[in-house]
Amino acid sequence: MKKKLFIVKIGGNVIDDEESLKKFLSDFSKINEKKILVHGGGKIASELAQKLGIEQSIVNGRRVTDTETLKIVTMVYAGLLNKQIVALLQSNNVNAIGLSGADMNCIKAVKRMNSEIDFGFVGDIVEHGVNAELISFLIENNLTPVFCSVTHDGKGQLLNTNADTIAAVLAASLSGNYDVQLNFCFEKNGVMKNIENENSVIETMTKNEYKKLVSEGIISKGMIPKLDNSFEAINKGVKKVVIGHSDNLNNMISENKIEGTVLTA
Amino acid sequence: MKKKLFIVKIGGNVIDDEESLKKFLSDFSKINEKKILVHGGGKIASELAQKLGIEQSIVNGRRVTDTETLKIVTMVYAGLLNKQIVALLQSNNVNAIGLSGADMNCIKAVKRMNSEIDFGFVGDIVEHGVNAELISFLIENNLTPVFCSVTHDGKGQLLNTNADTIAAVLAASLSGNYDVQLNFCFEKNGVMKNIENENSVIETMTKNEYKKLVSEGIISKGMIPKLDNSFEAINKGVKKVVIGHSDNLNNMISENKIEGTVLTA
Repeated sequence: MKKKLFIVKIGGNVIDDEESLKKFLSDFSKINEKKILVHGGGKIASELAQKLGIEQSIVNGRRVTDTETLKIVTMVYAGLLNKQIVALLQSNNVNAIGLSGADMNCIKAVKRMNSEIDFGFVGDIVEHGVNAELISFLIENNLTPVFCSVTHDGKGQLLNTNADTIAAVLAASLSGNYDVQLNFCFEKNGVMKNIENENSVIETMTKNEYKKLVSEGIISKGMIPKLDNSFEAINKGVKKVVIGHSDNLNNMISENKIEGTVLTA
Repeated sequence: MKKKLFIVKIGGNVIDDEESLKKFLSDFSKINEKKILVHGGGKIASELAQKLGIEQSIVNGRRVTDTETLKIVTMVYAGLLNKQIVALLQSNNVNAIGLSGADMNCIKAVKRMNSEIDFGFVGDIVEHGVNAELISFLIENNLTPVFCSVTHDGKGQLLNTNADTIAAVLAASLSGNYDVQLNFCFEKNGVMKNIENENSVIETMTKNEYKKLVSEGIISKGMIPKLDNSFEAINKGVKKVVIGHSDNLNNMISENKIEGTVLTA
């Protein structure tokens, strides 16, 4: 039987608030099984860009990562946030190691090519781009990898990469070695039928049920990339994906409690 | 017989110039033996502080690392520079892994206490603060650690720590497992008898010769901390320290050539 591995992704809502972050990291530290943390960015990067007078260019509603924005992303995500999180985990006796995709060549990506829009230094993870062997080797030596959302192309170029995607691709790639549960922690209690009603959380969802809910227009547009990522990870061997509130991590990973939205094949 | 390990420290002069950095990293990549890179900061951190209007407070001629300055240090050193260096080394087929002292609890420090001056978040590495076993474990698995000059106190606080000191303490701590040569690369050809004459490089120096030169006022004041660090490392088991120009790394590590200033017991 494979060992259990929890991959937990946190987003901006936790990161932007020091107390929430400390509470969350304390909960994360209580996970006794093997674990990986993936963190997104939060507001600090945009605030820094604004202070420095770097304009965020938006094309077709999507942010473009130009040279200056990539520098900010690398400073804030791979530097400030990653090391603050690692230091806090160390203070909880979790032997954390902060990683970008460039470190140990963990995650290789390719600059996104699009004939219409140049998104700049945005990376899409390549097929077999995750170095599952080296990551497993760290985990087996009782280290807890903490990934920021920066990857590289292997040719010296760093790339900004979506943190949800990193979490999902890591989960899929490590499912060969582990029994993986992927947890997306965000500011809602789960995937909701009615976005205005916090009590409308969908408790469980299979891929077929998901497709049906999308076709009926019940799933809010913003949730679709996260759910697509999740079902792709499940398709590639991840046992279970749980989407829920960052305050409820310990219930999300419990076998005995139902918390958030549980996705299965 | 122990394996050879080269620990190489580069400073701001290399880091501030993209072409110099690429050339240097290409030379570093040619080292076939086990190796570690330690990098300092350069001008980017002060430039960023200036752009953000963060005043650098200087007390008794020494920079104080206040909360905002520590954030900048962490962003620039642990984020931007560390990851750019790692990505460039990866493009040279060196399996680099960027580390702060918090990662894997590699280097533990304590906030500098001084009854007269508060230097802020400046860390002095504690006795036995280097996790030589985990660092050796990475090296033995063909990884090349790349250290920035940020450490932690184990209680969640990151600390700004002198890169020369990190290099020297790493060298001393790893000399139990390896036959260590420490190389300080900077903008001069070595330690000079006359700072105005590039041809006055002192080829070799023992600790006694060093003491004599200091007492005679021949060693320039700015070199003393680097040399004190070096002789302390030698005292703790480091085989050889070479101080020389960053353009000449490959000669500095060669057994057959004399380059820079070679320090021995």
